[in-house]
Amino acid sequence: MKRIALLLVTVSAVAGVAVSLAAGSGQADKEAAASRGFTIPSGYRDWRLISVAHEEGTLNDLRGILGNDAAIKGFREKRQTFPDGAIIARVAWDYVPLEESSKAFGHAQSFVAGPPKNGVQFMVKDSKKYPATGGWGFAQFNDGKPGGESAEICFSCHQIVKARDFVFNRYAP
Amino acid sequence: MKRIALLLVTVSAVAGVAVSLAAGSGQADKEAAASRGFTIPSGYRDWRLISVAHEEGTLNDLRGILGNDAAIKGFREKRQTFPDGAIIARVAWDYVPLEESSKAFGHAQSFVAGPPKNGVQFMVKDSKKYPATGGWGFAQFNDGKPGGESAEICFSCHQIVKARDFVFNRYAP
Repeated sequence: MKRIALLLVTVSAVAGVAVSLAAGSGQADKEAAASRGFTIPSGYRDWRLISVAHEEGTLNDLRGILGNDAAIKGFREKRQTFPDGAIIARVAWDYVPLEESSKAFGHAQSFVAGPPKNGVQFMVKDSKKYPATGGWGFAQFNDGKPGGESAEICFSCHQIVKARDFVFNRYAP
Repeated sequence: MKRIALLLVTVSAVAGVAVSLAAGSGQADKEAAASRGFTIPSGYRDWRLISVAHEEGTLNDLRGILGNDAAIKGFREKRQTFPDGAIIARVAWDYVPLEESSKAFGHAQSFVAGPPKNGVQFMVKDSKKYPATGGWGFAQFNDGKPGGESAEICFSCHQIVKARDFVFNRYAP
């Protein structure tokens, strides 16, 4: 069950979750440790689209996977491993039926992105900084603040796709 | 039923379908008329993400809605109408369970983009060129070739969202 719970967090998170919460008692300490110095990359919402996904169950969201230039290059060139500097972002929104479509069909047919949901997650490749987790750092931000699961928990599932350099998503052409 | 069928094509297509097939007998004639001189915009796959969606039923896809700079600007500035030159692209892929996730959970939990599906669709704003359809032209390309429904059929549903300048999708922040 614990394994399943970990998988729920990580496999279903697809692009990775984050962040080892520190033993420090203060919120600021926790957040600093959680982000491991990783801050939200500037302009990530303008990055190019890698793929899209839908999570069922408690996550119940629609998500876009975005990549900075190094990540997109890695995907498109089908590299075995991503170069240092590659960052993959996972944005997500509530999974809601499109009202006009539901009215027309009498049932939910079209599902679209509602308000933001489940935070924003990043995987950043830095093989020197994150040697223990496949060269990837993982970070999650909720309402702009670090939070989420530990990088080790993320990595425990991302190991399943070691052959794809620990990245669940494939590039959608 | 006909109305429902039209809605299936257009509401569910979300970003619009295309293309009035000509009476001409030749395939080339049909395609030329279908695209109305509209060709696939260069580099559209690199455009920024507007939103994501999932269609059930026979369409059964995951889709990304992308916009050129003018379209993104229109969305972000919450303009009442989009400026001429705005183009919205709808890319779509098969809706497939992520194998690793299904194995872990014993049921489909994570759905990801499979191979491309249902063509690529565009809405292009040109109020002088397309006055009869709200100032928007509609085009669909299947495997790079024009095809799909007529712009009038698209527009018959897009009229439902006249208040949003005939655009079903909202920007996902």
